[in-house]
Amino acid sequence: MIQRIVLIGAGNLATQLGKALKRSGLDVVQVYSRTKEAAKALADVLECKFTTSLDELQPCDLCVVSVKDDALESVLRQIRIRTTVVHTAGSIPMELLSRYFKDFGVFYPLQTFSKQREVDFSTIPICLEASSEVVLEDLKDLAGKLSSCVQTIHSDERRLLHLAAVFTCNFVNHCYQIGDAMLEERGLSFDLMKPLIQETSQKIMDMKPIDAQTGPAVRMDETIMNKHLELLADHPERKNIYQLLSESIYKTQNNK
Amino acid sequence: MIQRIVLIGAGNLATQLGKALKRSGLDVVQVYSRTKEAAKALADVLECKFTTSLDELQPCDLCVVSVKDDALESVLRQIRIRTTVVHTAGSIPMELLSRYFKDFGVFYPLQTFSKQREVDFSTIPICLEASSEVVLEDLKDLAGKLSSCVQTIHSDERRLLHLAAVFTCNFVNHCYQIGDAMLEERGLSFDLMKPLIQETSQKIMDMKPIDAQTGPAVRMDETIMNKHLELLADHPERKNIYQLLSESIYKTQNNK
Repeated sequence: MIQRIVLIGAGNLATQLGKALKRSGLDVVQVYSRTKEAAKALADVLECKFTTSLDELQPCDLCVVSVKDDALESVLRQIRIRTTVVHTAGSIPMELLSRYFKDFGVFYPLQTFSKQREVDFSTIPICLEASSEVVLEDLKDLAGKLSSCVQTIHSDERRLLHLAAVFTCNFVNHCYQIGDAMLEERGLSFDLMKPLIQETSQKIMDMKPIDAQTGPAVRMDETIMNKHLELLADHPERKNIYQLLSESIYKTQNNK
Repeated sequence: MIQRIVLIGAGNLATQLGKALKRSGLDVVQVYSRTKEAAKALADVLECKFTTSLDELQPCDLCVVSVKDDALESVLRQIRIRTTVVHTAGSIPMELLSRYFKDFGVFYPLQTFSKQREVDFSTIPICLEASSEVVLEDLKDLAGKLSSCVQTIHSDERRLLHLAAVFTCNFVNHCYQIGDAMLEERGLSFDLMKPLIQETSQKIMDMKPIDAQTGPAVRMDETIMNKHLELLADHPERKNIYQLLSESIYKTQNNK
């Protein structure tokens, strides 16, 4: 059974995962980060030790590596303690870990995390993968303490989930951002969009997104769309996004 | 004071507005639609008369014209009864109505409507504009019975709100749709995305979208992004959307 955990990384995901582990009664014994400032900040929150050296990791049952994807392999290479090691990345195959460890896996919470925003872990899908049945059982047991939605997901499927998450979260948020910037530039409040944003996300809880679609692009209403493109004339990037997404909506709706 | 209302149109907005008016104790006396089927369907729900002829409109205090934008002017031209006439469109200037009526205005509820989905009108921003103070007071009184968020908004600002709504609702929903299609094609459930979608829309209730952004495009993580582009190789349109939005996110995040 996993009880003592070392966290490698102090970013958004590591921060929120650390807090959730602590709330669920697990012992986060140590936080590692490259910079002392980040390591200490998270260690203070979790009331545990910290280090900036991968040679000084504490003994533990699980080492959770949650660093930027392009830093992952160089970090893995430096971990010498004997324990189960997991990463938390959406698009990195589990097999990468087999080069460095005997017992390993993936612990991928499918959610968007920011340092300053608390999240309720209980509904977050946690996607697991493991080097053996024994490790998988341990990870299931751990994940089950955080969330009621624990899934075994192969690396290929996880990568696809991550890609779908880029569309349904990062790209969605960018559309919010463009709306916000556009209104701010003209002195209008983004608050006016909030009931619409809530309803748009609520709608797809029980309708398929393709059936929930509305707006001028559905019927390629050129009069309206040309007025919108005029408003975007000074902003070629937003104009390109408007045209590309409108055409894509039209094609999708008319090939149903 | 407005009590008796004629609804011109039986689409998504007319349907939900008609129901909300009825719930608030107003008399929807008649529904017009081009097709008998649509007119009768909504009239049945609202328990009122219907017609497919604009020559047979009933006497009323307000005529609400809620038809497709490109059909609007030809409908307006045929309305002969003497009453206050409003349209409900985001991007059509109020002045269009001055060609045909003495008392007129705009009644624009900023929301996404589908026929089969009930909405809570009480939080929907209703954007009003009117030909005179007297008409404006009447519309404010009416809108106040439906919603606690009633705003006087000039045509130019309304058009901008509508454009922002295309980004924050229609384009957002299209990103959901792409995620849904992508997962369905590989036999994965869109339900896995739902906690993420909820959190993404909840986050911006108290964070600015620019500060809520996460994901590989923020730091232009090319290793991950190339893996995603590989998965999109068979779908050039999704690939274009991925590239354009990722570049736009990167630029936005790095010009903060």
